[in-house]
Amino acid sequence: TAKFDYTDNSHRRYNPLTDSWVLVSPHRAKRPWLGQQETVGKPNIPEYDVNCYLCPGNKRATGNSTPAYESTYIFQNDYPAVKLEQPDIDETDETDEIKKRLFKVQSVKGNCFVICFSPKHNLTIPQMKVDELVGVVNAWQSLYNTLDQERKEGNPYKFLQIFENKGTAMGCSNLHPHGQAWCLDVVPSEVSQEFKSFGKYQKDNGCHLLSDYVQLELKEKVRVVLENDTFIVTVPYWAVWPFETIIVSKERIPAIVDFNEKQNKDLATIIKQLTTKYDNLFQTSFPYSMGIHQQPFNPTNEEKEMSWFHMHFYPPLLRSATVRKFLVGFEMLGEPQRDLTAEQAAERLRNLDSEVHYLEKL
Amino acid sequence: TAKFDYTDNSHRRYNPLTDSWVLVSPHRAKRPWLGQQETVGKPNIPEYDVNCYLCPGNKRATGNSTPAYESTYIFQNDYPAVKLEQPDIDETDETDEIKKRLFKVQSVKGNCFVICFSPKHNLTIPQMKVDELVGVVNAWQSLYNTLDQERKEGNPYKFLQIFENKGTAMGCSNLHPHGQAWCLDVVPSEVSQEFKSFGKYQKDNGCHLLSDYVQLELKEKVRVVLENDTFIVTVPYWAVWPFETIIVSKERIPAIVDFNEKQNKDLATIIKQLTTKYDNLFQTSFPYSMGIHQQPFNPTNEEKEMSWFHMHFYPPLLRSATVRKFLVGFEMLGEPQRDLTAEQAAERLRNLDSEVHYLEKL
Ligand SMILES: O=P(O)(O)O[C@H]1O[C@H](CO)[C@@H](O)[C@H](O)[C@H]1O
Ligand SMILES: O=P(O)(O)O[C@H]1O[C@H](CO)[C@@H](O)[C@H](O)[C@H]1O
Repeated sequence: TAKFDYTDNSHRRYNPLTDSWVLVSPHRAKRPWLGQQETVGKPNIPEYDVNCYLCPGNKRATGNSTPAYESTYIFQNDYPAVKLEQPDIDETDETDEIKKRLFKVQSVKGNCFVICFSPKHNLTIPQMKVDELVGVVNAWQSLYNTLDQERKEGNPYKFLQIFENKGTAMGCSNLHPHGQAWCLDVVPSEVSQEFKSFGKYQKDNGCHLLSDYVQLELKEKVRVVLENDTFIVTVPYWAVWPFETIIVSKERIPAIVDFNEKQNKDLATIIKQLTTKYDNLFQTSFPYSMGIHQQPFNPTNEEKEMSWFHMHFYPPLLRSATVRKFLVGFEMLGEPQRDLTAEQAAERLRNLDSEVHYLEKL
Repeated sequence: TAKFDYTDNSHRRYNPLTDSWVLVSPHRAKRPWLGQQETVGKPNIPEYDVNCYLCPGNKRATGNSTPAYESTYIFQNDYPAVKLEQPDIDETDETDEIKKRLFKVQSVKGNCFVICFSPKHNLTIPQMKVDELVGVVNAWQSLYNTLDQERKEGNPYKFLQIFENKGTAMGCSNLHPHGQAWCLDVVPSEVSQEFKSFGKYQKDNGCHLLSDYVQLELKEKVRVVLENDTFIVTVPYWAVWPFETIIVSKERIPAIVDFNEKQNKDLATIIKQLTTKYDNLFQTSFPYSMGIHQQPFNPTNEEKEMSWFHMHFYPPLLRSATVRKFLVGFEMLGEPQRDLTAEQAAERLRNLDSEVHYLEKL
């Protein structure tokens, strides 16, 4: 009898972080593709754009000005999704029992920030120097520390979600290198689901899920993309997006503010290497959403013990600079589905140059 | 003290179907928008396109031909995500204990189908006649019955996910009116989570979640978009996508094959009305993914009692024919976020014409 072939036969893989499944259909990657392929050239983008509200010295829509910054620059989002001050919900207002159990609602307070990675409009993370990226890591650290301090002084801050949306495919219309950070007075769903999974795994198996995970990936090697003293980068076994990756610290480090200088540099380096590989894959400025999962402010005992720094990268491209994966119909109604295995994606990323960006060779 | 304003203050709402939360930031809809707006004209699309593999009489990439069909036409997907035959996974192969608990995997078998709604290349659902849409409902029913019969004869079929991806924004490159149906030997995650939620609600409250839901929405009215004898359409309290809707049968009907002729017509009518409103909203062929949740094949007792026909519509547009909502950075890392309330979206949809399509007025 024939043997199951993971590179050809359909299967589902379980994501123990989010307690969910992904359908893997590797043979689908073999079907003909009729979409056209754009030729890519060297983009011609100025270092300073007078119309960019993130360039030093320019005015923003609200009338506020971006100062003449020289490395990184953090400011409050002019159109925040959450605010520091708003009335509380009066729960006694609602008396309908069915409504109370079916329509649950919570007020959410917080604050939103924009983090400019560089004053230079035409850079992206892989094009920045490691030292400059250490500056970005420092900016994230200083934001974490500042907000934790403000929390102690009374601000409603529980979890700081640091992230970057890169590229128009990810809804980012301004290409000036920047990320965001939304700080809520609650742990958001994805993160709280991870804590739940970590807690359960610890209880069942007596160790941290990510500890087992790092050991297993290092042993199997097939999904490892990059490694240095502090971190590994893998395409997780349960990846949904075609070239999804995770950066995990090899040992448990709860939050970015717990890094020493060597660890800061190791993070900056591995982010630069990963994003260089990404750009080299399809010779394009590779779009993605990425972000940091780490320890909440004022952690409970369980949150303290279960926090393990890691970053998720969710990039949409599948076949080329212009052909992306759509997680639509079946994915929305049924279950996420991918067209190549995590191992196939990892192998392609592993074989790409992590040191020289394709634009340097043009 | 000021009172909490649901049309302005940030809050989270709970989705009892999927046991998840959505962050609602209604004030965000008020921010200025710099994206341009395209002007729309009458599209000039032929009724028959020689290059469309779904048009009657044309050849497909595999060499198979689409016959000269006159109403609907169902065929096996030439590039299916799951297949009827493949080897089984030999679970005794895996001996590493950590790997067994961390990397869970299941084989998935099944079959994939394409359903052409009409031979006319230039139609969309809202442009079809109610009778023609009854034909589509009949096609879905006949597919369900055929597969259930084949299951009895040994095919690995458990759940039939019927869906439609419409528009390039939803990854659909062929505008010929068609949907898909993927049949798996397992209940996919989204659906199995709904069954879990229905079961828990029934146990806790002694009635079906959707029974309470329908009553509550009919009582509150603010989220109801359409209603007829058999169905209601609402923007659910916990909607994620800006103009997300759900079509729910007012009474429990387990599956589409349980409808009588009047109910077939009521479904066809309300789908036509809803999609007409959608197209009229931004005067464009409104993109979406939609699909049916209903009773699995060979249901367990719980699945039998908990099955309640409903359809989800997930449309991405937010502000205009060209400005969509991106569920990216914060949404992927933290929690889905929306920019207007379900009530605001429902009001806009409710006020739109459901009988005359905007193209008829051009
Ligand atoms: O089968 P199609 O139309 O080629 O593909 C489309 O629908 C599928 C099911 O929702 C998705 O998996 C694909 O990403 C999408 O492009
Ligand atoms: O804040 P921005 O960049 O305008 O908006 C972008 O990122 C947000 C956070 O991921 C999303 O909610 C928006 O849909 C997206 O367009």
